[in-house]
Amino acid sequence: MRTLGATLGTVAPGSVEIALAPGPAVSQQHGFVHAGAVSAIADSAAGYAALSLMPPGAGVLTTEFKINLVAPAAGDRLVARGRVVKAGRTLTLAQAEVFSERDGAERLVALLTATLMTVQGRDGIGD
Amino acid sequence: MRTLGATLGTVAPGSVEIALAPGPAVSQQHGFVHAGAVSAIADSAAGYAALSLMPPGAGVLTTEFKINLVAPAAGDRLVARGRVVKAGRTLTLAQAEVFSERDGAERLVALLTATLMTVQGRDGIGD
Amino acid sequence: MRTLGATLGTVAPGSVEIALAPGPAVSQQHGFVHAGAVSAIADSAAGYAALSLMPPGAGVLTTEFKINLVAPAAGDRLVARGRVVKAGRTLTLAQAEVFSERDGAERLVALLTATLMTVQGRDGIGD
Amino acid sequence: MRTLGATLGTVAPGSVEIALAPGPAVSQQHGFVHAGAVSAIADSAAGYAALSLMPPGAGVLTTEFKINLVAPAAGDRLVARGRVVKAGRTLTLAQAEVFSERDGAERLVALLTATLMTVQGRDGIGD
Repeated sequence: MRTLGATLGTVAPGSVEIALAPGPAVSQQHGFVHAGAVSAIADSAAGYAALSLMPPGAGVLTTEFKINLVAPAAGDRLVARGRVVKAGRTLTLAQAEVFSERDGAERLVALLTATLMTVQGRDGIGD
Repeated sequence: MRTLGATLGTVAPGSVEIALAPGPAVSQQHGFVHAGAVSAIADSAAGYAALSLMPPGAGVLTTEFKINLVAPAAGDRLVARGRVVKAGRTLTLAQAEVFSERDGAERLVALLTATLMTVQGRDGIGD
Repeated sequence: MRTLGATLGTVAPGSVEIALAPGPAVSQQHGFVHAGAVSAIADSAAGYAALSLMPPGAGVLTTEFKINLVAPAAGDRLVARGRVVKAGRTLTLAQAEVFSERDGAERLVALLTATLMTVQGRDGIGD
Repeated sequence: MRTLGATLGTVAPGSVEIALAPGPAVSQQHGFVHAGAVSAIADSAAGYAALSLMPPGAGVLTTEFKINLVAPAAGDRLVARGRVVKAGRTLTLAQAEVFSERDGAERLVALLTATLMTVQGRDGIGD
């Protein structure tokens, strides 16, 4: 996330916000934020939302995600809002919406659904 | 792709290879390459494979992709191999496999399927 | 839908409900409704929701969908609620949630996201 | 599968074929096989392929799948070919391609990727 210049916003149990101020490093040749960067913040928002409901010491791994990109990711700021749809002992389903903000108005850019796996006591994966 | 340190490998009609030498900028807290970076090279490999079959002057947009992450992305090098499954006039279905290489051996890390849209004559999107 | 024994419930612009009373024809070997039947009603709810916002005479085709199955589909009744996330001229993104009902209580069974294509004036596809 | 009129074809470790002779019960209003029936045979082919590599007595549950529908499902016969991409202890990734056959020629209709979960010793789920 540091490489992309993303920052963590509001965090509540089961719900997390991540923001990104678009710059040249994450943009493709036409000034839009690259699909890869959009999915990175969406996946992270979903993953942190899942982690926020897991037991202390647990780690989280994304096993799969799907993202639909419905509008070009331009604007002053992108914000990804992740929330848990169904928390399970092993697998958690979470969702994230990414919005672009311009002049105070929000527009849906992408919708992601992800399966996250709780990982316990594996070296190098915990937390 | 430049931000991630990715490089374009073999390119043939309908098939493209992109490589990434893992470094701190694309790694998460445990030394594995971040899922976001893995999906970015997979999506790019699929997108360039689709573009390689489109008419000259056309641009390509990812409308959706799904990725399954089946093993930690570690090793000396990651390579994403994209290929077109079905090329259509408007929509193309492409697939990409990501492998990690260590000591000359390859291991499957991720599998992506993506829908790519051909874009013609829109300002700022062509090629 | 007739083969499965599904029935259309509430229909509003951009939002459609489809119900299914589980019986032996749609159940797998353990008494749960088969994943294929769950996805069929979810895909139909998303598709009809998309169609409800399209111009008269247009047809709808599913180009892709993804479904996460989060709990066994058992109970007295299954209900799929589809709604449009983003309506576009060519492509529409819709989502459907499937709930199982038992003794008046609802439980989330599945979450689907689908891309639907508007089809105009092709023989045999319109409506 | 019986409801749809599907039949099991070749079965090998990690690879399974399921065929469907299209009839009115699985067709939508225009004579094509319904997306729900196409995904049901694709999901079953992927699931049986996964099960063929699991230990005796284990059961299999689909946790998620995504399907891209690339051509209308018409013809004399549909055949879904499932194969395991990566078998894990808990989660298996499998893929299925669906082809339509007409006059001896095959055409790709759909591509599915699915995550299957191995289930051990739960009443009513084993095998």
